[in-house]
Amino acid sequence: METGVTTELYPRERVGLVREAAAKAGLGAVLLTPGPDLRYVTGYDAKELERLTCLVVPAEGEAFLVVPRLELPAAQVSPAGSLGVELVPWDETDDPYALVARRLPSGLPKVGVADRMWAVMALRFRAAMPAAEQVAAGGVLRGLRIRKSAAEVAALREAGEAIDRVHRRVPGLLAAGRTEEEVARDIADAIVAEGHSRVDFVIVGSGPNGANPHAEPTDRVIRAGEPVVVDIGGTMPSGYCSDSTRNYCVGEPPAEYLAYYAVLEEAQRASCAAVRPGTTPEAVDAAGRDVIAAAGYGEHFFHRTGHGIGLESHEDPYIVSGNLEPLEPGMAFSIEPGIYPGPHGARIEDIVVCTEDGFDPLNVTGRGLVIVG
Amino acid sequence: METGVTTELYPRERVGLVREAAAKAGLGAVLLTPGPDLRYVTGYDAKELERLTCLVVPAEGEAFLVVPRLELPAAQVSPAGSLGVELVPWDETDDPYALVARRLPSGLPKVGVADRMWAVMALRFRAAMPAAEQVAAGGVLRGLRIRKSAAEVAALREAGEAIDRVHRRVPGLLAAGRTEEEVARDIADAIVAEGHSRVDFVIVGSGPNGANPHAEPTDRVIRAGEPVVVDIGGTMPSGYCSDSTRNYCVGEPPAEYLAYYAVLEEAQRASCAAVRPGTTPEAVDAAGRDVIAAAGYGEHFFHRTGHGIGLESHEDPYIVSGNLEPLEPGMAFSIEPGIYPGPHGARIEDIVVCTEDGFDPLNVTGRGLVIVG
Repeated sequence: METGVTTELYPRERVGLVREAAAKAGLGAVLLTPGPDLRYVTGYDAKELERLTCLVVPAEGEAFLVVPRLELPAAQVSPAGSLGVELVPWDETDDPYALVARRLPSGLPKVGVADRMWAVMALRFRAAMPAAEQVAAGGVLRGLRIRKSAAEVAALREAGEAIDRVHRRVPGLLAAGRTEEEVARDIADAIVAEGHSRVDFVIVGSGPNGANPHAEPTDRVIRAGEPVVVDIGGTMPSGYCSDSTRNYCVGEPPAEYLAYYAVLEEAQRASCAAVRPGTTPEAVDAAGRDVIAAAGYGEHFFHRTGHGIGLESHEDPYIVSGNLEPLEPGMAFSIEPGIYPGPHGARIEDIVVCTEDGFDPLNVTGRGLVIVG
Repeated sequence: METGVTTELYPRERVGLVREAAAKAGLGAVLLTPGPDLRYVTGYDAKELERLTCLVVPAEGEAFLVVPRLELPAAQVSPAGSLGVELVPWDETDDPYALVARRLPSGLPKVGVADRMWAVMALRFRAAMPAAEQVAAGGVLRGLRIRKSAAEVAALREAGEAIDRVHRRVPGLLAAGRTEEEVARDIADAIVAEGHSRVDFVIVGSGPNGANPHAEPTDRVIRAGEPVVVDIGGTMPSGYCSDSTRNYCVGEPPAEYLAYYAVLEEAQRASCAAVRPGTTPEAVDAAGRDVIAAAGYGEHFFHRTGHGIGLESHEDPYIVSGNLEPLEPGMAFSIEPGIYPGPHGARIEDIVVCTEDGFDPLNVTGRGLVIVG
């Protein structure tokens, strides 16, 4: 049994919705190997293995789930086992790609493959179905996944509460004289202790390392007066992810840091305030970026403002210049501007959901600098 | 800095070896995204992200590593940063696929893509290089990766010793009245405590669950007299994996279990003894399978005998009927026959390396049933 999985979170009708979307997109079938798309459609958190597991959703006809015989018991007790989808086991010396091709109408002109399918599997499907042009199934799935249901928003909120609890523990873990790695290890333990089933990432960027947005924790010793960027996230038993960044300082930070930190807080508020149905991600990005540029720090904010979140830490919609697809209620994403002038930097990140008339923050710990010790 | 990474384990000449192999296979270039192939060639344990990181090895010309600008500091301090390969950063609104295509000769007829590249990335490369037929780069890489160097064998031995130490702790963790999940959690902690950087899998199959080779730990309470299959593995800081299965029983097992357990021990020894250069995996599989069939348990051994191991838990060569590629010195793989008649089952698994004249076992704890309590 998989924990945290309910038919409310993973409703049974999704196979049918994928079929409809595939037909509308001119795809003869959609092929979903283990990963977030398969989990979204079936609730099945299947392992990524060299042996093929694949949900096949034909535009016409019944869906079926091909599984290695060794994984059949796991598939049967998974949510996929109670979807009314036929489970088709294959044996060690069978060719499961030929098996899929045989069960589909021959000569399908176009099929969708899961975005994260291993290329070697997509190429084996190509050989088994040479007439079928392959396209990314994400084009079909994203229309479903990009707007979160009430149950998905609840799962993201539960993840947000869990990572907020971890941030509340951070002041007790940070101290001058500890290394980034020591603090990161304790934070990783806290991520699991607070209810995540997996640690996805832990950034503890002290002093100059805070000016590198994707710093890995090092053996650098944290010193008094150094700001520390803590950007952390994990995956809950439900499958949904958390991600939040807060900023800490052991003792008093430099005055120039406090100056741009105030700008950053204003920028993060401005991007959040821009979130509402009909606004573009580009405009949300610009709202905060303009604040930072107007204060003279424009060159020190060199990444996009955010990314969608759900069953993946990073998914659509991306909050970036050039993305003109209007926001809709249920879209969930990070708002995480940063300023990195060196020899330190800062980033403030919340997950927010677009609502009917604005935004709903899923992280609620204070965004101000937290002075420790 | 990444720990456990040495130029002995990840020698600098591999980029050149890939170039030669690509040219020989008629590939204009090989494209390696984060995963075991990229790590094998460069030592860089890059994260799998939606932003493209890709080592491009042209058959003619210099290799280069495309990285998102945010990952540039990580790439620079990784082993890839000291290979003499140009690092090519791209910015948030750039198209990195077009960037790769522009830097390669136009009209390449064939390129290799990493076996585990996400399909969505392979499709973006296809759009950027429409003339290039894509093939799995594994065809080129496997000739290098399938024979382990002395340093790789040493890394696998270190992994084997670590998982052996975990198995030695198992009798202290198993007790009647504990659940599979409780024992599995303790084993997972021990896998990390004994030097692995990651837990890959923990199977604790008690009683009837032991008859399911890929059982997930459940809340089932282990009872006296029930055999328990413990199949565990993880990844070391070096990148190399462990995998070993032993069998335990709290108190005395049923007589019929002991009868087939003796057959299984003989079968596992027979498959190991068949390992030497020139023998086929099919023959290694048959050696143990014949013992099991002769004793009347043939129908209860329904999976292949083993799988290669290295930077992946499962990789070439597969020890399975139909694989006729002769073994060579340096090939490393599991020998793991099982007998699953129900209401219990057993499997014995060692990692072995093919030597000049036989095999070298990397797991050395006793293969006999371990009676606990």
